[in-house]
Amino acid sequence: MAPPGSWLSIPANSHFSLANIPFGIITSKHSQAEKRPAVAIGDHVLDLKAFATENGFSGLPSLKESLEVFSQPTLNAFAALGQPIHREVRKYLQDVFSEATSHPQILKDNTALQKAALLPKHETKTHLPMQIGDYTDFFAGINHAFNVGTMFRGPANALQANYTHLPVGYHGRASTVVVSGTRIRRPNGQTLLDPTADPKVPSFEPCRRLDIELELGCFLCSSNPLGEPVPIKKAHESIFGFVLMNDWSARDIQTWEYVPLGPFNAKNFGTSISAWVVLPDALDGFRAPKLKNETSILPYLKEDREDSVYDIKLEVDLTTPDGATTTISRTSGANLLWSFPQMIAHHSVGGCAMQTGDLLGSGTISGKGETDLGSMLEMNQAGKREIMLAGMDVRKFLKDGDTVTIRGVCGGEEGALVGFGECVGTIESAVVFTS
Amino acid sequence: MAPPGSWLSIPANSHFSLANIPFGIITSKHSQAEKRPAVAIGDHVLDLKAFATENGFSGLPSLKESLEVFSQPTLNAFAALGQPIHREVRKYLQDVFSEATSHPQILKDNTALQKAALLPKHETKTHLPMQIGDYTDFFAGINHAFNVGTMFRGPANALQANYTHLPVGYHGRASTVVVSGTRIRRPNGQTLLDPTADPKVPSFEPCRRLDIELELGCFLCSSNPLGEPVPIKKAHESIFGFVLMNDWSARDIQTWEYVPLGPFNAKNFGTSISAWVVLPDALDGFRAPKLKNETSILPYLKEDREDSVYDIKLEVDLTTPDGATTTISRTSGANLLWSFPQMIAHHSVGGCAMQTGDLLGSGTISGKGETDLGSMLEMNQAGKREIMLAGMDVRKFLKDGDTVTIRGVCGGEEGALVGFGECVGTIESAVVFTS
Repeated sequence: MAPPGSWLSIPANSHFSLANIPFGIITSKHSQAEKRPAVAIGDHVLDLKAFATENGFSGLPSLKESLEVFSQPTLNAFAALGQPIHREVRKYLQDVFSEATSHPQILKDNTALQKAALLPKHETKTHLPMQIGDYTDFFAGINHAFNVGTMFRGPANALQANYTHLPVGYHGRASTVVVSGTRIRRPNGQTLLDPTADPKVPSFEPCRRLDIELELGCFLCSSNPLGEPVPIKKAHESIFGFVLMNDWSARDIQTWEYVPLGPFNAKNFGTSISAWVVLPDALDGFRAPKLKNETSILPYLKEDREDSVYDIKLEVDLTTPDGATTTISRTSGANLLWSFPQMIAHHSVGGCAMQTGDLLGSGTISGKGETDLGSMLEMNQAGKREIMLAGMDVRKFLKDGDTVTIRGVCGGEEGALVGFGECVGTIESAVVFTS
Repeated sequence: MAPPGSWLSIPANSHFSLANIPFGIITSKHSQAEKRPAVAIGDHVLDLKAFATENGFSGLPSLKESLEVFSQPTLNAFAALGQPIHREVRKYLQDVFSEATSHPQILKDNTALQKAALLPKHETKTHLPMQIGDYTDFFAGINHAFNVGTMFRGPANALQANYTHLPVGYHGRASTVVVSGTRIRRPNGQTLLDPTADPKVPSFEPCRRLDIELELGCFLCSSNPLGEPVPIKKAHESIFGFVLMNDWSARDIQTWEYVPLGPFNAKNFGTSISAWVVLPDALDGFRAPKLKNETSILPYLKEDREDSVYDIKLEVDLTTPDGATTTISRTSGANLLWSFPQMIAHHSVGGCAMQTGDLLGSGTISGKGETDLGSMLEMNQAGKREIMLAGMDVRKFLKDGDTVTIRGVCGGEEGALVGFGECVGTIESAVVFTS
């Protein structure tokens, strides 16, 4: 089916086609830098506060009592309205932007509202889309888990015994999740320069093994009370939408600190996410089966369908300070053993209260080859080889001034792409300690 | 020095003497269940919104522009004013309640304001004192770390190599921190009934090894920007105050899930804290040296003083469903290898942004004996022996209907106790899964 056309000029290769309609938070000079909900459409964004204020939602009377959600500085209130409302709003906005819109008076023929609410994207700035209550990072990319496990324990013992029985995860740091474009400062920390020394004596210095982790993030749109698990059959209803994520990782700090309670300072110095939240409805046509799990899983994790992940084409670019860009990975978002509904069901099974605005990370997404890996640790084979870059340059890990750009997009049909835009971060040099 | 007397009748054994003045959040029928900041004093609480509204702070003109902090449903805004303001407000309230108050017209001789703002404690209900951004749990109780490490690896390898070099910690779940009195539902989860089976196959059932962890919690009152560490010399200024904490732990779930990323569902079903935040000023007279660390630590963790923990007398009571109560532990809050300022300095050293309202847990506090242990796992020697209770009853771990009460108090002088009140939780039976 050819995608419906829009009266608005949308570039054919835009991630933000009429088939997408992702939500975010913007500021612009038009609104004196007030944070406002918005949707991205082609090279424009629709300021939903301005749109709602000027009767843009008058064609959707069911939303009338809820319009204040578009006057909030985050998407939490909109998300908390639940999936049926997200669906209605998205469909309505698709109609509003359609060439054959049933509401031409709303925006197509309303140049005053276009001027007030439809802003060129380059004149706006994006912000963290949600106030994040808790951030949990999972480890559902089995190829990554296998690759990294092999480095430490060999292929026969690469995966821990629990790995195929439950989606392994850990609590992350919510306060340091930042929106795409935020610069990331290289962390200082304790590292063990000579792991063979006895006794082991750590050094304190800037991280030498600064890495990326290519992940997908999932924002929640509902809350369950403490002590009341979210059943697997309902878990998909808790999903507001998805973002790209870069879980920056300090490998040398991690190696020294993580026993026995898991990663801490190795991760909490920054986690980048893309700015636009793509709704599950927009991704529904790109469902794909999870990776095959040979283990018989417990009933509380059993889904009705296997195609509960998405074939999102993911790419990672590394741009060196001299401006040369190399695509260092191309993989698929379907490279997961566990889906987000399974993660939600597991996370809450003991009674953990999940909340609107919570962020779940998938864990690093790697394929099984050499060019589809989600971390530099895997690309450089635990530091054993250089990653080849454009311009005769090489890297094992990130240098100061390096920029990492993750992109994700679904579909191949021009004019109907459903994409995430970019998740970008540039590395700043570490703080100089003088104490 | 004899404690100053109050015109208000304060029981001599009250944790909330004039020397304390801890802050919390209450509701009462007097204010139509609106959450309000308050201080506890003897058997009363002072409703700070009512007090501020009726010119109670007129004797403290420097606070005039900030009084709206007492109209908030959490203490975050008050905390964010910083330690010098907390100090002023505490001293002012101590004066207001003193027999020899310099402001008798404020409250002592003002029966109208007494009626409006000074409420019998039993007519009020306490709530979570802060909106918690992130919750981090440390592992600074070296006796506990040693005891538990010995169970798994023997005494020679009980402590991991990093333990004496850095305060080991992990990110916890903020959404499930609850105030004292909240009932705790026993979690369901995956456990390995037969750890020797090959392959290992988990069961799904209610936790069989439900435990406590006796801890202190520390709330922060300042924020540092991402990428800008809090130096050790400034870290104490980030502390708003302290609470008692019970980090409920599902040992069987933990054993199966925690490799390689740390505890997750074993902890996120609930963490209880006491309701009243005791300020560092109130505890200053009870400073004690940290436990001796033979390891030479890195400069970013070096404090000017060794007496950076507190000799808080801690007790744990277990009350069985038939009402029999046994004190199962008596220990001191000074049983820590690392202080909270060290935890803050370490937590932020890589650039992690800390925020007002963040909660840090000390880790389980145990002594070196048999009667001063902070977890049942230690008391029962990894399940090898029963813990003897009153009434010929025994426990290895908690049964449904058991109530655990933690108390903490400093000082022995009647009329001058600085205490935390109680941190109480009762175990409810697990959700019955039918899926």
